[in-house]
Amino acid sequence: MYNKIKLLAQQYHQETIQTRRDFHKYAERGWLEMRTASLVARRLDSLGYQVSVGKEVMREEFRMGLPSKRLLTLNYNRALLQGADPYYIEKVKNGFTGVVGVMHNGIGPVVAIRFDIDALSITEDDSADHNPGKNGFISCNPGAMHACGHDGHTAMGLTVAKILAQIKEQLHGTIKLIFQPAEEGVRGAKSIALSGILDDVDYIFAGHIWQQVEGEDYDIYLGMNETFATTKLDVTYHGVSSHAAGMPQFGKNALLSAASCILNLHSIPRNSDGCTRINVGTIRAGTGRNVVPETAKLEIEVRGATTELNNYMEVYARDVIRGAALMHDTIVEINEMGKAYSLDCDKKMMDLIRHICIDHLGDIKVAKEDLSPLDGSDDFSYMIATVQAHGGIGTYMKLTTDLVASPHNCTYDFNEDVLLTGTTVYSSIAYYLLNQD
Amino acid sequence: MYNKIKLLAQQYHQETIQTRRDFHKYAERGWLEMRTASLVARRLDSLGYQVSVGKEVMREEFRMGLPSKRLLTLNYNRALLQGADPYYIEKVKNGFTGVVGVMHNGIGPVVAIRFDIDALSITEDDSADHNPGKNGFISCNPGAMHACGHDGHTAMGLTVAKILAQIKEQLHGTIKLIFQPAEEGVRGAKSIALSGILDDVDYIFAGHIWQQVEGEDYDIYLGMNETFATTKLDVTYHGVSSHAAGMPQFGKNALLSAASCILNLHSIPRNSDGCTRINVGTIRAGTGRNVVPETAKLEIEVRGATTELNNYMEVYARDVIRGAALMHDTIVEINEMGKAYSLDCDKKMMDLIRHICIDHLGDIKVAKEDLSPLDGSDDFSYMIATVQAHGGIGTYMKLTTDLVASPHNCTYDFNEDVLLTGTTVYSSIAYYLLNQD
Amino acid sequence: MYNKIKLLAQQYHQETIQTRRDFHKYAERGWLEMRTASLVARRLDSLGYQVSVGKEVMREEFRMGLPSKRLLTLNYNRALLQGADPYYIEKVKNGFTGVVGVMHNGIGPVVAIRFDIDALSITEDDSADHNPGKNGFISCNPGAMHACGHDGHTAMGLTVAKILAQIKEQLHGTIKLIFQPAEEGVRGAKSIALSGILDDVDYIFAGHIWQQVEGEDYDIYLGMNETFATTKLDVTYHGVSSHAAGMPQFGKNALLSAASCILNLHSIPRNSDGCTRINVGTIRAGTGRNVVPETAKLEIEVRGATTELNNYMEVYARDVIRGAALMHDTIVEINEMGKAYSLDCDKKMMDLIRHICIDHLGDIKVAKEDLSPLDGSDDFSYMIATVQAHGGIGTYMKLTTDLVASPHNCTYDFNEDVLLTGTTVYSSIAYYLLNQD
Amino acid sequence: MYNKIKLLAQQYHQETIQTRRDFHKYAERGWLEMRTASLVARRLDSLGYQVSVGKEVMREEFRMGLPSKRLLTLNYNRALLQGADPYYIEKVKNGFTGVVGVMHNGIGPVVAIRFDIDALSITEDDSADHNPGKNGFISCNPGAMHACGHDGHTAMGLTVAKILAQIKEQLHGTIKLIFQPAEEGVRGAKSIALSGILDDVDYIFAGHIWQQVEGEDYDIYLGMNETFATTKLDVTYHGVSSHAAGMPQFGKNALLSAASCILNLHSIPRNSDGCTRINVGTIRAGTGRNVVPETAKLEIEVRGATTELNNYMEVYARDVIRGAALMHDTIVEINEMGKAYSLDCDKKMMDLIRHICIDHLGDIKVAKEDLSPLDGSDDFSYMIATVQAHGGIGTYMKLTTDLVASPHNCTYDFNEDVLLTGTTVYSSIAYYLLNQD
Repeated sequence: MYNKIKLLAQQYHQETIQTRRDFHKYAERGWLEMRTASLVARRLDSLGYQVSVGKEVMREEFRMGLPSKRLLTLNYNRALLQGADPYYIEKVKNGFTGVVGVMHNGIGPVVAIRFDIDALSITEDDSADHNPGKNGFISCNPGAMHACGHDGHTAMGLTVAKILAQIKEQLHGTIKLIFQPAEEGVRGAKSIALSGILDDVDYIFAGHIWQQVEGEDYDIYLGMNETFATTKLDVTYHGVSSHAAGMPQFGKNALLSAASCILNLHSIPRNSDGCTRINVGTIRAGTGRNVVPETAKLEIEVRGATTELNNYMEVYARDVIRGAALMHDTIVEINEMGKAYSLDCDKKMMDLIRHICIDHLGDIKVAKEDLSPLDGSDDFSYMIATVQAHGGIGTYMKLTTDLVASPHNCTYDFNEDVLLTGTTVYSSIAYYLLNQD
Repeated sequence: MYNKIKLLAQQYHQETIQTRRDFHKYAERGWLEMRTASLVARRLDSLGYQVSVGKEVMREEFRMGLPSKRLLTLNYNRALLQGADPYYIEKVKNGFTGVVGVMHNGIGPVVAIRFDIDALSITEDDSADHNPGKNGFISCNPGAMHACGHDGHTAMGLTVAKILAQIKEQLHGTIKLIFQPAEEGVRGAKSIALSGILDDVDYIFAGHIWQQVEGEDYDIYLGMNETFATTKLDVTYHGVSSHAAGMPQFGKNALLSAASCILNLHSIPRNSDGCTRINVGTIRAGTGRNVVPETAKLEIEVRGATTELNNYMEVYARDVIRGAALMHDTIVEINEMGKAYSLDCDKKMMDLIRHICIDHLGDIKVAKEDLSPLDGSDDFSYMIATVQAHGGIGTYMKLTTDLVASPHNCTYDFNEDVLLTGTTVYSSIAYYLLNQD
Repeated sequence: MYNKIKLLAQQYHQETIQTRRDFHKYAERGWLEMRTASLVARRLDSLGYQVSVGKEVMREEFRMGLPSKRLLTLNYNRALLQGADPYYIEKVKNGFTGVVGVMHNGIGPVVAIRFDIDALSITEDDSADHNPGKNGFISCNPGAMHACGHDGHTAMGLTVAKILAQIKEQLHGTIKLIFQPAEEGVRGAKSIALSGILDDVDYIFAGHIWQQVEGEDYDIYLGMNETFATTKLDVTYHGVSSHAAGMPQFGKNALLSAASCILNLHSIPRNSDGCTRINVGTIRAGTGRNVVPETAKLEIEVRGATTELNNYMEVYARDVIRGAALMHDTIVEINEMGKAYSLDCDKKMMDLIRHICIDHLGDIKVAKEDLSPLDGSDDFSYMIATVQAHGGIGTYMKLTTDLVASPHNCTYDFNEDVLLTGTTVYSSIAYYLLNQD
Repeated sequence: MYNKIKLLAQQYHQETIQTRRDFHKYAERGWLEMRTASLVARRLDSLGYQVSVGKEVMREEFRMGLPSKRLLTLNYNRALLQGADPYYIEKVKNGFTGVVGVMHNGIGPVVAIRFDIDALSITEDDSADHNPGKNGFISCNPGAMHACGHDGHTAMGLTVAKILAQIKEQLHGTIKLIFQPAEEGVRGAKSIALSGILDDVDYIFAGHIWQQVEGEDYDIYLGMNETFATTKLDVTYHGVSSHAAGMPQFGKNALLSAASCILNLHSIPRNSDGCTRINVGTIRAGTGRNVVPETAKLEIEVRGATTELNNYMEVYARDVIRGAALMHDTIVEINEMGKAYSLDCDKKMMDLIRHICIDHLGDIKVAKEDLSPLDGSDDFSYMIATVQAHGGIGTYMKLTTDLVASPHNCTYDFNEDVLLTGTTVYSSIAYYLLNQD
């Protein structure tokens, strides 16, 4: 059967590539993936999956970092023009772009796979030697680019769906294919993870296309460590503007609050329990040189090697943020724009996949060490934590290949061979888990 | 003769108003006043003045706070479309929008009057009850609005030119009508003041439309005090970006330099010799929440009640700015965007104007106190200082009237009666000075 | 009679000098003036004044900046050893060192004079050419020195008491001679001013020995301006110490609160209504290099050219101080250590003294301008304000002379001739006011 | 032979205790250990060791954090009074309190043991139940206390010297017993490590008395990790004082430099290569509330899990420190008061000691894990690094026992049984290494 899976994956490889390129061309940023999500839903439906969309699989109040109404409307129109499915778009609009395809097949375990579908706020490089341009699938949406491989993830998800539908008879149990919006900024997973659809899951996994380490030629790393828990905060200080020469004392200087906040956030003490991070990534404040700044808006993130360490940072940061307001009598507004736990891969799950690869997928080269560093955050942590809380296990893999440029760079691209690795391995894992006696 | 001047001013009043409304409609920001300047030049020329424009009356290297090439080009095209004079626009383009009209009339003193011509970076209010909209002269240039009365100043300048041309025979000496660009941000005067054209001036004055003090009904204040010397600095910190979680240590955080700069600038000690001011009006920094900010750009101004006090502030501020760069190993770029001395009105000049008003212009109500506070800065100070340095005298008057809203507000408007006061008084002063035995 | 007063003042001049030198030798800092106060009380008593002391003339709760119990006890013992009056010391101990001598003489106005009696926390210079050392009256109390002339003020007060007692028959009304403790740090006046003893005062004045302006030879300036209202705050941040390497996160860093407080206090915006000042004069924090600082103690003062401006500063400062605590989760303790209003001298009082000097004290040279800058604070402002609130008037004079060094310097000394000026003028004013029909 | 060593150690145990108590009683702080060092030298001499002292074993220019001349002189006198050796004190005075005893015994390896001898700046607890007080060996030097066990280390060193002298015939090679001053503050080791006396050493080790981990009963941990490299800096900002109300602008505010320095030091970015630390442990600044602070003195330390990480911190910190001076035009003085590398224990050395203990010292319980955290710094790292640089190996052990209170606490004391463990193990290691064929 593993050979059959391999054959199917190869047979569908060109289709996987075409799907990937289509999503790449119509790149859509977090919560705006209305074309992507509606097309995913239609395809799953046509493959015989039971499709749940939007509010059916998302807790409205746990969605984070939503774009403005205006942006949602503009992109609704754009998505329709770019070929979104007219039925499903009505279900995923207004920031409900999550899709789950379920296939029940009798009694057996429940296996979930997560695929993230959103692009980044980057305008794609249009120079002559950039592959997507050369091959006609460069993003046609300015300010939106798949520069982190989620187009590939989504495409793999659909091919896996197709393969599993083909070998349905051999599967005993339930498959849940989760297509998650807004992973960038760790905004989308929580609303799905807490919707209840993971509560019965026994095994969950996800993977990410990743740069090959120099001097190695592994195809897959079975787990990641150094995954930061993180909280993303938007902070706005509201003061009062005033003419800076004529009557400075009538102003309440939002920028003084912000400057004090920035310095003191970076001064949060290091923690001997493990790594922590703080960044104030952007600030916009003030309207004119001679006006006391009325408003200052900051984009902040804290991280911690564990969820506890992230809590330490977040609690301290909130004190700093509020103290800076008190200092200059400004009003502060704190919005949580994203949040992710630290991510714990289960040894048992990794052992199991290692076994599948070695015993059944001989040409897939598995890294010797279980864990390799993520050195960042992924809100898949919400999903794995939910599964673990209900007694299940999971992991988060790397699918390694050659990248043309670093992730989040406007010249990013990957070797599409990696898609074949992904569809083969994912399908094999699902088969293995659902074909046990 | 004073009666004749009064009659002419009244006779041309509607024309003054129309001119003002035309300039108001086609509001142009500092250095971009290509339509305004070219039309002013043509009109002066047609009135028989010897017209000097652009590089003929401006020291290129002393222009401050110029807009980008791109903006200059875009506005050149716009100005042409909006009726700029095709001959003169070639002379005033590329940031040379100063115009001087000279009338020589035999031996006698040299009298100069300054009119500022630029608008502000404000989009004009378009609500139903805003007078310029109701009367069809609302600014048609988004992001540019005459919200400080310079449209009126320019219109008065042209009417004064016309009146003086009419009474030319009675004038012995030289008139220099100076139309100055980029007064907002105190960027334009220095280049004219140091061009040499003021070196032979015996008397200089300027006026500004101003809000009537409540409970008073004066038409004119003869001089201003509490005029701040000021320096405008654009400061950019250049650091190195880096992933804030993956490798924070490889970044050089421009925002940490900026935050430290802001707090310490505001901490510059007060000075017992007089008032000082500091403001960081705007900051823009960073590109993304999870990226160490590579660049931070600040708009800063310092002020002092005297030129010495402003120097104290500027010297200290530059230390702070550079120290903040050293702290976080960033590179700092400091650009001087504007500068003005403190402004000293001559008692002798004010006495003289008081005498003219009281003896010859009975219905003009002159304030009892010579001086009234400017509580701000005007780079006319460069001009008066240059004249004083060569032995001349001068003053800077207020023409008071009812304002609909504060200056620099998008609903600003003024009672156009004030234009009549201005053209009458200005012309009378010139006549008086050039008709003495 | 003015001649008699002059003669008496001259006759007692050597005694005044001896008294001054005795107080100089046994210099006592604020609230510790137990020897000085008890001897003043005894002398007033022996001159026939009705003497009120300590709690009789002070509101306990309005005393500010008291020393520790330990210091009070140590100095009680010291004062006794140094010849304090054993009866009165019991009344002035424990921080009640105010003394008022009252002489009623029938119906007439009530005239009060304030003399401050405290020394500074300075160890006097013991070099060979320092006059007090040469002449055997150098302070024998280490860390306490009369470096601001209050020894002279006190001595003048006693001689004035003696002169007025001599001419008692010519005085119709009441004299109140107020000997105030703890003027340094503006700590002592409030408790006396609000005790009720000033409520019936019609005229109040005080004087201060001052440096002669170079090139002038005036003996007296009739009033002072540029007197700052001020508030003195001691601020202590209480955090939690921790090993800085082993577990920095368990500390609450009092020094981070303090550093943030300092920078932001200095950043309080300037005020266009007038001069303001801020100073963090001292900080002591931390116990060891490798320990997170548990405590940080700051001595702070704010000032304003008016009481309102000082309030603006104080209110803002308190916000900053509390905000800095919130930022780093420390606890802050704010103690008000001193406070003074801005000081308003009455034109009428100054005119009156000018008249006395010119008409009756021909050799006293009075400055032409009424006001001369104090450029500092004196809590005599509490007393003058209380008197003014009840309809009385007052002023605060300078008695000018040659100073050897600046006030508050360890080599300070003054030409004792000034004491004669003071006793003559003060007594004459009192006589004038109480001898009117 | 191991049995003989054990017997000797037991036989000398009371003497070890007495020696320890004597050093405890006459506790001497870093560089002031003139009594201790001179007595150690005399004892080594009497045991037949070749004794090198002071400049003979120390590089003068690499001593760090020396006390003032005055303190050195005062303590010279004190040490003499307290029984210092009159011959050796002349060699160790003026900050040269290092002592090395060498025993050559034919051809063979060179083995070095380090013992640190200095006390801490703590006044010992004198409450009734504190053991040193009860037993009459409480420190008689106020402000100096052996609160980190170095008295025990020194005593063990002398007993080891005695034992090894007894079994001299069985040893082939060289023993170097190094008594190091000023380990507290990591100030003394560098000057010895770079003197040349370690260049021929094959094996080096040291040990530290340490708290037993709860629930374990090991006697010894063979190595330490989590040893921070560190740099200790004293930073003084020199500004200019001025009256804070009268002329704030004439001051140069050292405290503003310091406050800015503190906040920005704590803002040094975290480093993804490993742990870093920063602490500003103390600050003293300013002389009076109303005076612009002229001087601010800070005690700072940076640390890094590796020497490279410490360098990262130190280089960045120096930029911050200098930038803060530039900001407020103060002059900054940076003194390096201590420095230590990170410390790398050799696996080979730990294996070897484990072997000795297990095979020959059956009742010594060795921890299973090689490494246990130091979570701090010890400048023994200079010595081990020097030995490693010349091809030798070494380790730094923990001798665990019950502590009455934490190290650096005024009630610290240890169970003296641990001294027996130390003398036995140290002597056995030396024997093993020098008795191999």
